[in-house]
Formats: sequence, structure tokens, C-alpha cells
Amino acid sequence: MSLNLSSWTRPDQGALFVVSGASGTGKTTLLREALRHVPDLSFSVSATTRPARAGESEGLDYLFVSPERFQAHVDAGDFLEHAQVYGNRYGTLRAPVQKALAQGLSVVLDIDVQGARQVRKTMPNGIGIFLAPTSIEVLEQRLRARGTEAEHTITLRMAQVQEQLNGSGEFEYVVVNDVLSCAHDCLQAVFVAELQKVHRRQLVIQGLKRQDG
Amino acid sequence: MSLNLSSWTRPDQGALFVVSGASGTGKTTLLREALRHVPDLSFSVSATTRPARAGESEGLDYLFVSPERFQAHVDAGDFLEHAQVYGNRYGTLRAPVQKALAQGLSVVLDIDVQGARQVRKTMPNGIGIFLAPTSIEVLEQRLRARGTEAEHTITLRMAQVQEQLNGSGEFEYVVVNDVLSCAHDCLQAVFVAELQKVHRRQLVIQGLKRQDG
Repeated sequence: MSLNLSSWTRPDQGALFVVSGASGTGKTTLLREALRHVPDLSFSVSATTRPARAGESEGLDYLFVSPERFQAHVDAGDFLEHAQVYGNRYGTLRAPVQKALAQGLSVVLDIDVQGARQVRKTMPNGIGIFLAPTSIEVLEQRLRARGTEAEHTITLRMAQVQEQLNGSGEFEYVVVNDVLSCAHDCLQAVFVAELQKVHRRQLVIQGLKRQDG
Repeated sequence: MSLNLSSWTRPDQGALFVVSGASGTGKTTLLREALRHVPDLSFSVSATTRPARAGESEGLDYLFVSPERFQAHVDAGDFLEHAQVYGNRYGTLRAPVQKALAQGLSVVLDIDVQGARQVRKTMPNGIGIFLAPTSIEVLEQRLRARGTEAEHTITLRMAQVQEQLNGSGEFEYVVVNDVLSCAHDCLQAVFVAELQKVHRRQLVIQGLKRQDG
């Protein structure tokens, strides 16, 4: 997509986009491209108790915190969502997201359906986007073609996809990744459109109204 | 904008887009381009009591009806909106709009703020898009530059713009026509995004769900 947004006006307030989708739907590529093209849009940086790997930067890839610090944030209700994966904890802090939104910047959360559900409770204004695969058969073929997954893992993954599909009704948008170029345009359109919502464009309207009117 | 929607899947149900904006905001050009690029989107055809002009086709430009027929439609509540302009009556019939929506086609209504208000009452699911000018000064300069309008007409027009701005809060989206290319992308994004709304994509989701699940 060649969005031409050179004269883009930043909205009064940014939007929180909560994006979920099955692995194998090309979510990472889609989001990376969207962030290149849509102005003032960036990924949320998660806090984690996992140690930094070589090449990872504090504040850029993750906020690296101690388990005690993480738990203190949980107790204080500082997280929009948090989860444990293979013994490490990951979470999205509310404060940096809200600071960005107040500056007119928008934030993308790449998260699973369960995490999206948590975020919906803490930030009901978050905009849910569900990335759906073209077909279950193609998705299963792709997982097999990787050749890295055991048969029982593939079965588990496919069951997870069905669970995600059952949760898709909780999202506001469904973008189908049928052919990559179409999904790019459709996803970026959702980001751009939401930022034209009337409640995010009140400064423009106020500026046009006659002072004497 | 070079939307690449070659693999576009028609939504389960189309959307009714209600577009209003001051004259001089480039609305006609914007909409014409959007209709060229966004799939399955077309203008609503108005019914009118005005006689057909040379080159106008029945059903394509207007539905030409007698004053009696028009009034019968009014009495039967067949119109989404109707108005009188210089002694002629114009109106949007509900039936062809609903037929298109049910087929997954989307309809654009190019209408003033008062008309949009009427449509909102009869079709609350209609999506309002307000096209705002870049600046009041530029808009006034453009009207003067035409050289065709008397001073009191310009004053009247500018007062109408202020009235429209006061009504802009009733719309869902505000697209600012600051530089033409940006407005094109922003407007087309709204059309494309709305058609990805989850309630218009249930057939896709149902198709992906396992029959045995």
C-alpha cells in the first residue's frame, strides 16, 4: 500500500489497537508494514521478568524488571494485561500507553485472545482487530511445511486457532489475510480510519469555528 | 492512493455511508475517486420530481417521478430523507438502499447536514462522514476566486459552513481535506475499514470454524 499521508494531522488523542491472530497468519509482517506506513503508530513495549538476550535493549525491546518489581506492579493494578509464559512473566503497563495516547500517538498491542480480553476490561476504548487466516487447511499446511513442529504440537495449535475463532466476536474488526497485499491495505485502513473518528478530531473542528459565532 | 484490493472478499452486509461537507471542500472529486478504488461501493440514486435534463438517464442519474408519486412515497414512509430545492423535490428511497446492503454492496449518500440528520433517524446504522475544509479563510478565498458569486451569497455560504461545523459532532468520522492526496487516503480508509467490522465478516469466521468443533 502506498499511503500518502504526508500532510497527516495528529489526532487529539491516539488509539490503542489490540491485535490478535493465529500464528501463521502473517501477523508480524502485517504489523511491521503498518508501523512503517501509518504515522504516529508504534508497538507497546512489554515489561518482562525474563533476562535480556544479546542485542535486546532496555525500553526498546522490553522493560526488564525483577520478579518482585513485576509482582508489585500486579498488586498495584498497573498492568493492562499480564501473563506467564514458560515461567517468565510478561505484561503491558498502563502508564506509558496512556501517556502516548494523550500525546496523540497510537499504540499497537500484539497479543493473544486471552490477553485481548484482559485489555478490554481495563481499557474499554481499545480497538480490537482479529487477523483471520484464509483457510484452516492452508494454515495447517503452513505449520507442517515448517517441519519444526511435532504432530501433537500441530494438533494443539489447530485447536488453539478454533478457540481464537470462537473469541473473534469480541473484536471490532476482522481482517482476513487472504492475499498478503489485500490484508496490508485492509489493516492499515482500520488504523487510519479509527484516527479520523470524530472524538479524535475535535481540535480541527474547534479551529474552524468562528470565534464570534 | 493505490489500494490493492484485488482479492477483496465482499462483506456479509454492505454499509450505508452518509457523507456531508461544505461546498468547496472537494467533496465531489474525493467521492468520485473513492468509488473508483473501493470495491462494491456506489452512489445512491435519488428520486426527484425535476424533469430529466439532456443526457440524464432514468435510474442512473435519478429516478424521475411525478409530484403525485413522490408524495405517495412520502406518505408511505418510503424515504430515508427528502427535501425540496428550488421547487423540486429530491429524496432517497429506502428499498433500493436496503436491497444493495443485503447483497453486500455499500452505498454512499452525498447529502447536506440536515439530510444526514434525517437519515440517521431512519437508518441508525448509517455511517456519517463529515468532510471538513482545511481552513475557513482558504474556503472563503476559493468561493471568491470563482468570481461567480455575489457578496451576499458568499456571506450566506460561510454562515452555512459554520452551521455545518456545529452539526459535525453528529458524524462518526471527520476527514479534513487539507492536501488532496491525504484526504483521498483517509476517506478511502474509512470505507475499507468499516467493511472489515466484525458484524460484516461473520461468514468468513463461520467458514473457518470446524464443523465438528
